[in-house]
Amino acid sequence: MYSKLPPKGMRDFLPAEKAVRDEVEKRIRGAYISSGFTPVETSFIENLPNLTQGDGGENQKLIFKILKRGEKLDLSNLDDSAGEDSLADLGLRFDFTLPLVRFYSNNRNELPQIFKGLQMGYVFRGERPQRGRYRAFTQCDVDIIGDESNLAEIEVIGAVIRALEALEFKGFEIKINDRRFLTSLILKHGFDKDSIDDVCISLDKLDKIERDGVFAELTRKGYSAGHANSVLDAISGMNLDDIKEYSADAHANISQIQQALEIEGAGAKVVFEPTLVRGMGYYTGTIFEIFSSDFPLALGGGGRYDKMIGKISGADQPAVGFSLGFERICDLLNERGFGSSEEGKTAVIVSSEDQYPKAIASQSEIISRGGAASIYIKKKKFGRQLSQLARAGYNKYLDLEDGAIKSLEE
Amino acid sequence: MYSKLPPKGMRDFLPAEKAVRDEVEKRIRGAYISSGFTPVETSFIENLPNLTQGDGGENQKLIFKILKRGEKLDLSNLDDSAGEDSLADLGLRFDFTLPLVRFYSNNRNELPQIFKGLQMGYVFRGERPQRGRYRAFTQCDVDIIGDESNLAEIEVIGAVIRALEALEFKGFEIKINDRRFLTSLILKHGFDKDSIDDVCISLDKLDKIERDGVFAELTRKGYSAGHANSVLDAISGMNLDDIKEYSADAHANISQIQQALEIEGAGAKVVFEPTLVRGMGYYTGTIFEIFSSDFPLALGGGGRYDKMIGKISGADQPAVGFSLGFERICDLLNERGFGSSEEGKTAVIVSSEDQYPKAIASQSEIISRGGAASIYIKKKKFGRQLSQLARAGYNKYLDLEDGAIKSLEE
Repeated sequence: MYSKLPPKGMRDFLPAEKAVRDEVEKRIRGAYISSGFTPVETSFIENLPNLTQGDGGENQKLIFKILKRGEKLDLSNLDDSAGEDSLADLGLRFDFTLPLVRFYSNNRNELPQIFKGLQMGYVFRGERPQRGRYRAFTQCDVDIIGDESNLAEIEVIGAVIRALEALEFKGFEIKINDRRFLTSLILKHGFDKDSIDDVCISLDKLDKIERDGVFAELTRKGYSAGHANSVLDAISGMNLDDIKEYSADAHANISQIQQALEIEGAGAKVVFEPTLVRGMGYYTGTIFEIFSSDFPLALGGGGRYDKMIGKISGADQPAVGFSLGFERICDLLNERGFGSSEEGKTAVIVSSEDQYPKAIASQSEIISRGGAASIYIKKKKFGRQLSQLARAGYNKYLDLEDGAIKSLEE
Repeated sequence: MYSKLPPKGMRDFLPAEKAVRDEVEKRIRGAYISSGFTPVETSFIENLPNLTQGDGGENQKLIFKILKRGEKLDLSNLDDSAGEDSLADLGLRFDFTLPLVRFYSNNRNELPQIFKGLQMGYVFRGERPQRGRYRAFTQCDVDIIGDESNLAEIEVIGAVIRALEALEFKGFEIKINDRRFLTSLILKHGFDKDSIDDVCISLDKLDKIERDGVFAELTRKGYSAGHANSVLDAISGMNLDDIKEYSADAHANISQIQQALEIEGAGAKVVFEPTLVRGMGYYTGTIFEIFSSDFPLALGGGGRYDKMIGKISGADQPAVGFSLGFERICDLLNERGFGSSEEGKTAVIVSSEDQYPKAIASQSEIISRGGAASIYIKKKKFGRQLSQLARAGYNKYLDLEDGAIKSLEE
């Protein structure tokens, strides 16, 4: 049945909202490019096996799969054991990390030794639609591939701060942690190697369900009360200096990043947060999230994933990435009444067809002087027409009857 | 099986190609916005029934359909009569016209009475991949909805010329025709009403297979040799004045558009082309294509489709649209070595970690003055590193060892 609405969880954008999205995209892009990141683009559609055998975690369950076409789709001879995958051969990308790893592995020789890449565009996830969560949404990712030093983290975080400053956010706090510390912590408090990711998932909830909640979850999962208490005691109120005994590397790493980024006047605080985990299983070192003083939720996050490219290409490549929450930022800026930088427009008003050539000449002249102009036929209710034009963003009009440019206020 | 390549017919874009795409998009967008068109956005994904019951012609057969998810997909109980459509509920958009008509019908009260909209983005078609034809490609459409006068055609064509001028194309020829003339012509030469679209499809091939080819095709389709000869005699060498007897409206329309657009120095010739048809069945009046003197194929085309919105919303709305061939333009500009407007970048070179804060301060200073800068750790083979940086778009470097900015030539 035909529907005038976009599908569930999908959106259209009217001019005002679209203007905010375009402006946000433009400013983020500008800040990232001036920080040395180079835009690249990967395909919206990936071969399904590429999407389903990665470290994409929960997101792999949310893939929009594309039906095979033509002869490839044989409904009379379904392979029950293959299930859905006998019907679909392609899928929509659900993030930029998997496609980037494929892209990098395929194009390594064409890219600089230290590759600083920028990707902006839509990704798709079949999530249960809810407020602030969409099934098609824009991601903005910067990644540095090929730099094993933590200059990569410093560069990425610096660029993200510039992007958020370009959007008029202020007072940044970067929460930072290191997976190497978390791994050592979990092992030292009696858990085994295979439990690391699972225990991390519970520790990640400390800020939401607090110590008692995490304890209950860990014991419910079958871990001993002794191990659970031990790791929770250790992590509670832990300072950066305390992590030396777990991982000297993590301690040195976080300290260096703090020192490099806490430049006088930069307005960015780097705060060690031992309970920060981040969901994806592919992180191997530093992990971080960025907050602005005027909003309680993270505006973005990322980390180091040194082992992911090796899994595809056979040769490990150090990599650090950061993803900004584009939709969250747009929602926030829409609430704030964030305006685009668009100048006003001039409506050229014609009363008859023989004025068309003159109207086009006037329009072209305004445009060639850097303005924006469009032609409209004069309506009988001219006052009403002018109000409508003002609502559509016109702040001036030129009536060819008298040839004067007049201002137009909404 | 994992593949490093994008799926068949899909593409990734390396920095140089991506820079051209971004620059082309930026210039087209700028020209359209200054001509009074307002960007809007419609969903990438549409409900499948919306895509399959339109006038999309051949394109409807090329839809990428998305597999139902979760409980909705019941493989054990396939509805054989519904075939594929019992498996899929969503599809990727294959053009911008169907989504725009849905968008307009849904948001009519939020939009100006005469709505001048711009859409840019990817559309998807499961075509047989071939040179210059892709399964995912960018479209740039402008549409004017709500203007029954041919000022809409004039505005749209004028804006397209500005967009192509911004891309340094020159010497424009607009081939123009009117569906009302074609309809009258075909009826007057003995064909019946139901044959109009079919005869149009054959006439469209006159430039490729010439008169003999079209005659053979028409008779093969079962039309009488007499009717075929009659219509082919009539259309051969026909001038604009000759169409008065078929459609006075079409004659007046094309003449007015010619007069309005043939402004001295505008460099655009509007040429009546009786054999121009354009594929889509939804066109109702003017149809046009734009050519530049330096390229043999059309750079874009469009026309008037006054009945399409009425089919959805119940109330007809006059509409004119124009779609630029973004991919064709990019392919052409890539061959020409079209450069982006990007300025050079400065590489800030550090030799040790204690220089990080100074490097960040230097980078920030360069960026705040409008430049672009990024930090790199000095390699042992510094000369080789500098060559690599030059290839990656850096034209200057600042070595913090001596503090001087030096130029860097590739």
